[in-house]
Amino acid sequence: MRILTAGESHGPMLTVIIEGFPAGLVIDEHAINHALKVRQQGYGRGKRMQIEKDTIIFSSGVRHKKTLGSPITMHIINEDYKKWQEEMDPLGEERPSKREIHTPRPGHADLVGGQKRQFDDLRNVLERSSARETAIRVAVGALCQQLLKKLGITSYSYVTQIGPIILSEPIDKSRISNSPVRCPNLQTETAMMHAIDKAKEAGTSLGGQFAIKIKNVPAGIGDYTQWDKKLDARFSYHLMSLNAIKGVSFGDGIQLATKPGADVMDEITWTPQEGFSRSTNHLGGIEGGMS
Amino acid sequence: MRILTAGESHGPMLTVIIEGFPAGLVIDEHAINHALKVRQQGYGRGKRMQIEKDTIIFSSGVRHKKTLGSPITMHIINEDYKKWQEEMDPLGEERPSKREIHTPRPGHADLVGGQKRQFDDLRNVLERSSARETAIRVAVGALCQQLLKKLGITSYSYVTQIGPIILSEPIDKSRISNSPVRCPNLQTETAMMHAIDKAKEAGTSLGGQFAIKIKNVPAGIGDYTQWDKKLDARFSYHLMSLNAIKGVSFGDGIQLATKPGADVMDEITWTPQEGFSRSTNHLGGIEGGMS
Amino acid sequence: MRILTAGESHGPMLTVIIEGFPAGLVIDEHAINHALKVRQQGYGRGKRMQIEKDTIIFSSGVRHKKTLGSPITMHIINEDYKKWQEEMDPLGEERPSKREIHTPRPGHADLVGGQKRQFDDLRNVLERSSARETAIRVAVGALCQQLLKKLGITSYSYVTQIGPIILSEPIDKSRISNSPVRCPNLQTETAMMHAIDKAKEAGTSLGGQFAIKIKNVPAGIGDYTQWDKKLDARFSYHLMSLNAIKGVSFGDGIQLATKPGADVMDEITWTPQEGFSRSTNHLGGIEGGMS
Amino acid sequence: MRILTAGESHGPMLTVIIEGFPAGLVIDEHAINHALKVRQQGYGRGKRMQIEKDTIIFSSGVRHKKTLGSPITMHIINEDYKKWQEEMDPLGEERPSKREIHTPRPGHADLVGGQKRQFDDLRNVLERSSARETAIRVAVGALCQQLLKKLGITSYSYVTQIGPIILSEPIDKSRISNSPVRCPNLQTETAMMHAIDKAKEAGTSLGGQFAIKIKNVPAGIGDYTQWDKKLDARFSYHLMSLNAIKGVSFGDGIQLATKPGADVMDEITWTPQEGFSRSTNHLGGIEGGMS
Repeated sequence: MRILTAGESHGPMLTVIIEGFPAGLVIDEHAINHALKVRQQGYGRGKRMQIEKDTIIFSSGVRHKKTLGSPITMHIINEDYKKWQEEMDPLGEERPSKREIHTPRPGHADLVGGQKRQFDDLRNVLERSSARETAIRVAVGALCQQLLKKLGITSYSYVTQIGPIILSEPIDKSRISNSPVRCPNLQTETAMMHAIDKAKEAGTSLGGQFAIKIKNVPAGIGDYTQWDKKLDARFSYHLMSLNAIKGVSFGDGIQLATKPGADVMDEITWTPQEGFSRSTNHLGGIEGGMS
Repeated sequence: MRILTAGESHGPMLTVIIEGFPAGLVIDEHAINHALKVRQQGYGRGKRMQIEKDTIIFSSGVRHKKTLGSPITMHIINEDYKKWQEEMDPLGEERPSKREIHTPRPGHADLVGGQKRQFDDLRNVLERSSARETAIRVAVGALCQQLLKKLGITSYSYVTQIGPIILSEPIDKSRISNSPVRCPNLQTETAMMHAIDKAKEAGTSLGGQFAIKIKNVPAGIGDYTQWDKKLDARFSYHLMSLNAIKGVSFGDGIQLATKPGADVMDEITWTPQEGFSRSTNHLGGIEGGMS
Repeated sequence: MRILTAGESHGPMLTVIIEGFPAGLVIDEHAINHALKVRQQGYGRGKRMQIEKDTIIFSSGVRHKKTLGSPITMHIINEDYKKWQEEMDPLGEERPSKREIHTPRPGHADLVGGQKRQFDDLRNVLERSSARETAIRVAVGALCQQLLKKLGITSYSYVTQIGPIILSEPIDKSRISNSPVRCPNLQTETAMMHAIDKAKEAGTSLGGQFAIKIKNVPAGIGDYTQWDKKLDARFSYHLMSLNAIKGVSFGDGIQLATKPGADVMDEITWTPQEGFSRSTNHLGGIEGGMS
Repeated sequence: MRILTAGESHGPMLTVIIEGFPAGLVIDEHAINHALKVRQQGYGRGKRMQIEKDTIIFSSGVRHKKTLGSPITMHIINEDYKKWQEEMDPLGEERPSKREIHTPRPGHADLVGGQKRQFDDLRNVLERSSARETAIRVAVGALCQQLLKKLGITSYSYVTQIGPIILSEPIDKSRISNSPVRCPNLQTETAMMHAIDKAKEAGTSLGGQFAIKIKNVPAGIGDYTQWDKKLDARFSYHLMSLNAIKGVSFGDGIQLATKPGADVMDEITWTPQEGFSRSTNHLGGIEGGMS
């Protein structure tokens, strides 16, 4: 599958072309729109996030809700383009605007992007480097989840840390989707929301960590035969391509560093009844670059 | 640049073809051999590592020590192939051998690799999934370092944690290359070696962490325009393709999760004398997917 | 540059994402629309071609007529989607339609495409395999021509054969753009149009040949170092991806087969005044896979 | 499958790494050596071709004659490297040599390659751009043929034209492998050999054409959904990457240009007994970019 995304943050729309998606899948656009809504709801999010309601539009590769095997095009219209048309019109005339940006923000692509492409107005950078781009990737993810679901593969994610607050036991998976901070523990959730409130008051924001769990992945995805085929390497490539992510680990992750090797191996057992099985999962279900 | 590695752990040789390497670089094979030697010396390493002495052989892409712009082929002869020829001969007859493997090791590709390719003898998997493959990648790295050095870019790495022992200040860079555990602090080094000795006695091994520093990278490598061009994503892809690496982070890394956003931004200053500069480096020198 | 096209022939629109296009080019949308118009005008073309007027829409990668270096999205609205909405609506309900196709046409993807993807309605194939897809590729070409023009590289093409009629001398380049059959010779043009008329009367169509000339290509594009970098191989890959093209050749092409080697070499001369030059061009300006 | 070739014409060896070749194929190295021999035997070939006897060496990806699914490395030792070691030694000292080349040959990469990489000695170009590289590609082809044969797919090729001599009927396929000019018709063969003799006397060489036939290709290889997946485009890409090939066509090829559309369609028939079938093959078995 080849995937190219396009679109500026305040331009007419975000677009993605997905090449190589199989034919015959009945798609559910509501599930995609729900995922887009969840993306926009994060506790403590800015106003724009809350006002705008992203909706997916298909313009190719799907007919009567069924995929055709031909390239799928999805769009998300940027609702506030109406207010930005003068500044962002692809074919309009350039005019002086108060929305030009000449001070690069730390932690963003502004400075280096502007130098690299010799832009005077740094808006030319941040319109593309913005996390807004992830909206269309969320749509791609929600679409692919529908394909995976057909194959019996499901996944979910939850927040494990916000600032100094770390997720405590017990973990109640059913809480996640209704939690404003996607936290599976009520007590931690309260503490996390409190920490966010305090950070907002202090005019800053907070880092965090989250976990992704994937179920029913068939054994053998990925390969040990060439460096660029290893599954953990590919996951890392995709995850680290998100602006906000600064680190990735698998299984016990960073804690593997502190432990003896013997304690982090997931012992393999075999019985005639159950075949191969394991009672631990220190390595996150990936060994030798394969699931 | 396209790079494909090949070779089984006890087969005749490891091979790599590097496609797209520029012409005109005078190469130093001794520096590559030195890097191979360093790879084999790690404190507490197994016997094989200490006995075998890997040496690089060039068979294409270089003439009279100068690169030609055509694909470079490098080989490392597996010295112990002599003792393994019967078991590993590409074109020899198959014969029953005591070196067949039927018990998959946890933490390795054995089980899933054997299922995926329907192998009876799991040696067919581990010969390729073995960390031996990294020897030829070390050679590629040492070659690329020579190219980068020409461009003024240098790099070094050191160990920051082994088991429970974490690197203490001060950091003396000059210690690294002579330290058996590549540690830039004498006191930490002693503690690390002690921890390894104890682990060996207990019949286990230890995890750890290491840091990579790269100097003089020109601004603008990588790109914010498409997910798969981001520099941190690409670094992660390459690093996570190493068997032993289970997590990657940049800058303050995992600690970014605990801090307020305002504390992890690397403030940008500008003066007529110095141009743009920064006094901190929380994000590891990568912003918006670019150096 | 990575280019993915998408879109069904009677779907809402055709879309392309162009990744890696440089920043700072001032684009001329009229030139693109002109190229789209020329595509639709061919002598003897079907009615649909003449009625519909394709127009390019940009929705990303361009701001105030200047490219941003971020991915460029272009669309062409399918004007007759209005009449086809019921049959082609991506998210609409499926209903019985007279426009279903159950008889595969020879010379098209219908039969095999339907088998491959197990489609009942072959329209699912032909909507994508249709030559309509080339409209968006013409737009890509017209955009790239603007970039090449900046670099001094220009190109043109003309028809050299239609059915039995072969282009005669003299060749008047200025005739091409106004010729209904893109023919640079009046007499040949008349004969070609006559042949087309007769074929239409007989209820068939005619094959043909055309030539492409590219000027001012700098020496050294393409490479001899790896099979997939050769310029003539790449040109062939792109050209042969057009449905209607069944053969490609360079320079004297197929006639090279009949001639002695000595007669088809383009002798290299060197003088202090002119440097290297050649007086013939049997090989089409590509030697060893490079311009 | 990813394939990278490497090696200079008079360097130590040619090498190829084939990545993605399936596991479990029993290989026949003799068939590969036979293909290498056939390559060297062409009527009228230079002396070097006749003296040297290329032999395939495997150094990875194969164990006891069975492929492992890991990358396959094959080598062909350049027998005359012994005589060229001083000039071509990868790590040896540069010394003045009579084998330096300063006059670029027309029809080769010499001139442009030398300019592109700023080489003084054009041998740096021609050692790689030489048709010698095709020896290792012949080995790749012979290996892949063994895989295809397992799937029931076979292929053969024969010469259809040399200089002015064009293949006449009848075509006797069994003649090909013993014909010095790979010609399936005795009378034509005699004429072709005579033409070659005359050309040699005149100090020149002759162009030609050949045909490739592939049998039992399952329907549906290639795809109509994206330009770069079309089977005819991919074939052309690979074929045109050979130095000596200046044109490619499918089915009736260039003659399609002269015929009415109705005469070149391969009518599809369907009967309950035979399913879909066709009685003609004007388009070479590829429609819509698929077999």
